[in-house]
Amino acid sequence: MAPIDNVLSRADENLPASLERLFELVRIKSISTDPAFKADCRKAAEYLVTVLTGLGFEASVRDTSGHPMVVAHHEGEKADSPHVLFYGHYDVQPVDPIELWETDPFEPSIKEDEKGRKIITGRGTSDDKGQLLTFVEAVRAYKDVKGALPVRVTILFEGEEESGSPSLKPFLEANKAELKADFALVCDTSMWDAETPAISAGLRGLVGEEIVVKAASRDLHSGYYGGAAANPIHILSNILDGLHDETGAVTLPGFYDGVEETPADIKAKWEELGRTGEDFLGSIGLSIPSGEKGRSILELTWARPTAEVNGIIGGYTGGGFKTVIAAQASAKISFRLVGKQDPAKIRESFRAYVKSRIPADCSVEFHEHGGSPAIQLPYDSPLLNKAREALSQEWPKPALMIGMGGSIPIVGDFQSMLGMQSLLAGFALADDRIHSPNEKYNLESYRKGIRSWIRIMAALAA
Amino acid sequence: MAPIDNVLSRADENLPASLERLFELVRIKSISTDPAFKADCRKAAEYLVTVLTGLGFEASVRDTSGHPMVVAHHEGEKADSPHVLFYGHYDVQPVDPIELWETDPFEPSIKEDEKGRKIITGRGTSDDKGQLLTFVEAVRAYKDVKGALPVRVTILFEGEEESGSPSLKPFLEANKAELKADFALVCDTSMWDAETPAISAGLRGLVGEEIVVKAASRDLHSGYYGGAAANPIHILSNILDGLHDETGAVTLPGFYDGVEETPADIKAKWEELGRTGEDFLGSIGLSIPSGEKGRSILELTWARPTAEVNGIIGGYTGGGFKTVIAAQASAKISFRLVGKQDPAKIRESFRAYVKSRIPADCSVEFHEHGGSPAIQLPYDSPLLNKAREALSQEWPKPALMIGMGGSIPIVGDFQSMLGMQSLLAGFALADDRIHSPNEKYNLESYRKGIRSWIRIMAALAA
Repeated sequence: MAPIDNVLSRADENLPASLERLFELVRIKSISTDPAFKADCRKAAEYLVTVLTGLGFEASVRDTSGHPMVVAHHEGEKADSPHVLFYGHYDVQPVDPIELWETDPFEPSIKEDEKGRKIITGRGTSDDKGQLLTFVEAVRAYKDVKGALPVRVTILFEGEEESGSPSLKPFLEANKAELKADFALVCDTSMWDAETPAISAGLRGLVGEEIVVKAASRDLHSGYYGGAAANPIHILSNILDGLHDETGAVTLPGFYDGVEETPADIKAKWEELGRTGEDFLGSIGLSIPSGEKGRSILELTWARPTAEVNGIIGGYTGGGFKTVIAAQASAKISFRLVGKQDPAKIRESFRAYVKSRIPADCSVEFHEHGGSPAIQLPYDSPLLNKAREALSQEWPKPALMIGMGGSIPIVGDFQSMLGMQSLLAGFALADDRIHSPNEKYNLESYRKGIRSWIRIMAALAA
Repeated sequence: MAPIDNVLSRADENLPASLERLFELVRIKSISTDPAFKADCRKAAEYLVTVLTGLGFEASVRDTSGHPMVVAHHEGEKADSPHVLFYGHYDVQPVDPIELWETDPFEPSIKEDEKGRKIITGRGTSDDKGQLLTFVEAVRAYKDVKGALPVRVTILFEGEEESGSPSLKPFLEANKAELKADFALVCDTSMWDAETPAISAGLRGLVGEEIVVKAASRDLHSGYYGGAAANPIHILSNILDGLHDETGAVTLPGFYDGVEETPADIKAKWEELGRTGEDFLGSIGLSIPSGEKGRSILELTWARPTAEVNGIIGGYTGGGFKTVIAAQASAKISFRLVGKQDPAKIRESFRAYVKSRIPADCSVEFHEHGGSPAIQLPYDSPLLNKAREALSQEWPKPALMIGMGGSIPIVGDFQSMLGMQSLLAGFALADDRIHSPNEKYNLESYRKGIRSWIRIMAALAA
C-alpha cells in the first residue's frame, strides 16, 4: 500500500462532515440503564448501521434480549490482510443531575474551553460515541482515497456497556465464528495527557452489587419508635463503613486472593511519571489519596482493587426535615478487581459479609449488576508494539504503556470466549467528565484520533 | 354548671357535621416543610379562623416570618373561670412515598379496617388536624347546649410543628401577655391502647441536624478515580456508624450528661404493663429492640435518648447502575433527648465529632433543624389528676400516666417562656401511621376525644 499522507489529509478535509455525524449520534438519547430510553438505543444502532452501510460494510442491527448490537463486516485489500474486530458502545450514562449541565447534554456544540482548546460538548461525546467514530471516520478516509482497507474489519457496537453488558456474553457465544478475528481494537480509554497517547495493558475488573436493607414494614415516626425499632440506614452505614479498615484496605474475607504486587520495573516507570496526589486530584478539588495507605496514585488506580459505594438512599431526602425511621435503605456498591481476583468469589464473600450484619428481624435483598475479571496483557506483544509506534508518529510525545482504573468487561470476554487479545487505545482525557455533567471530547482528540487509527491500520498491515 | 350529659349527647349528635369540618381541613394540603404548599398553609389557618369565629371566638390569622399562627380568645362562664391555652398544629408531614397510599392523602374518607373499626383516612387526620378539632368540637357542643364555656379559652394553632417551629419562640416572646394562661392543653399525643387513655408526663426533646459531606468538585468515574479520590458516602457511613457503640449507646462526648435513671417505682409500673419487643414491634414487622442493650421497650422509647438517621442520599440512586463517585452525600440526623440534656451542647458535640471525621481535603456543611429540651412534669400535680379522672370516666379503662418518645417543643417553650405547665392528652393510636403513608384516625378516637375534652373542661372548672 502506498504512503498514507493523502489518507491523513483526507481525514482532515472530512472533519466538518465527520463532526456532523458525531452530532447526529450524540443527539440520540441512548441511555441504556433507563428503560424510558429503549427506543433511542435502537435508533442509535440503526443510525450506525446506515453510516456503516454507506461505507461499504455489510451491516445490520442484531436483536438481543436487551438493547441491540450492531455487527458489520468489510473485506481487507488482500485475502491475507490481518483481520481486526473493532469494538465500541453507542449507549451512554444517565445525565442527572441535569441542572449542573451548562449545555443540553443531547444538543452537542463546539465551544472553547478556558485554555482556548476547542471542545465538543454533550453526553457520550467522549464515552463512547466520539471515540467509536474515530475508527469509523478513519475507515471513511481510507475508502475515499484508496477505495479499500489495509485490514479486514469486523465491527461490534453494543448498547449496554453502561449497564453491565448483560447481553454481550450470550451474543458472543452465539456468534463466535462470525466475530472471531486476529485481535480486537477497543477505543474506550484515555490518553496519558493531551500530548501523550497511551495503550492500556492492564484493566481493572468490576463487580456491581445493589443491596436493599429492609427493617420495619413501613416508615415509622422516630419519636414513637426511635430507640426501639431497627433503623435500616444505621444497618447500612455499619455495613458500608465496615468494608474498609483503618489502612484503607478492603475487609472482605478472601478479597485480596489473586492480587499480585506490580513488578518493580513497572512500578519504577510509573514513579518516573511523577504523578502526585495533588497532580491527579487537584483538578477535582482534592489533594490526598484516600485509598490504601502507602501506595502511589498510579498503583492505587491501576494496580490495586477497590470497594466503592456509588449510590445510597433511604428515609426522607426532600427539603426540610422529617423525623422518620425508614422501612428500607439501599446502596449500590462496586468492586474494581486486579490480577486474578475472581468476580464470583468476591460477590459471594460480599453477600456473606452483608448478611452477617443484618439483625435477625430484618432482611436484605441483593441485585447483581455485572461482573468481570481484570485483564493484564503482555507488555512485549508485537500488536502493542506496532500500535505504540503508529501512535507515537501522530502525537507530540511517544505513546506510553499504562494500567487502567476502569473496567471494560468485553476485553475479558474477547480473551476467554474468542481467544483474542485486545489493543486498547483511546483519545479521551482525564478532564472529559465522562459519567458526569458537562461531558466533552476535545476536537483535537477527535481529529487526531481519526488520524491515529489510519496510522494503526496501516502499521498492522505492514 | 349543670351536669354535662346533655353536652356529651350533643357532641354525638354533632358528629356527622364535625366530621365534615375535619374533612374540609384535611383537604387543605398544608405541608409546612415544602415551600410549594405555602399558600395551602395559610388557607388552613384561614379555615380555622372561620370555624372559631363561628363559635364566638375572637379569632385571627397572625403573620410570622414563616407560616401564620391562629390565635383565638373566648371568655369563660365566670370572671374567675380557669384560663386554658389550647395548642394544636394545622400543618402536616409530606406524603411521599405517594405510591404507597391506598387512598388520596388529601381526600379523606371513612373506611372500615381489618378489625371492623371505622377509620378516617388522610394525611393529618391523626397528626394533628383530627386531634385539634376534638377540642374545637367539644367547645361547639358546650356552646350549643350551655351557651357558655366552663373555662376561659385561648387557642394557639401553629403551622410549622412538622418543620421545627422556627417562628414559635419569637411569636410567644412577642405575645406573652396575650397567650399566658393558667396552663396549657396540648392534643398531639397517643393513647396507651384503644381502650386506655394516657396523659404524658414526660416528653423527649429533639435536636435536628442535616450534614452535607463534600469531597470532589464534581461527580467522578469510579474506575478512573476509584481508590484515590475521597468518597463522601464512605465518609458519611463512617460518621453515622460511629454514632453508636456495640451496646447501642450513643458515642458523642457528653451525650449522656443530664440523663437520669428512671425512678424504680415508675420503672416497676411500666414493667407491670408487660409490653415486650414483640408487642411493640410486631405490628410493624419487627421483634428485637434495637437500641441500648439491657433496657425495656418502654424505657427505650420514653426515658432514654437516641440518635437516629432520618434520611440519607448520595451518588446514583436511579434504576440500574452508575459507576460514579459522588461529589457529595448528605444525611438528616435527629437526637431525642431526655432529662436535662442540653440541646445546644449536644449539637455542638455532634458537630465537633463530625468535623473530626472529615478528611483534610474534604468539607462538611451543617444545617440546623430545630432543638428543644425534654420535659418532665410532676406526677402528682392537681391538673394532671383532674384530667386523669375525667378521661377515666369516658374510656373503658382508667387513664395512665406515661412517658412519650416524641418531642413537642412547644411544651418546653410554654414552661420556660410563659411559666405554664401543659396537660398532654391525645387520642391517637400507635397504628395511626403518622408521618407515613395511609395515616388514619379512628372514628372512635375522634368521637370520644371530643367527649373527653368536654369532661376535662368541666373537671377543670369544678
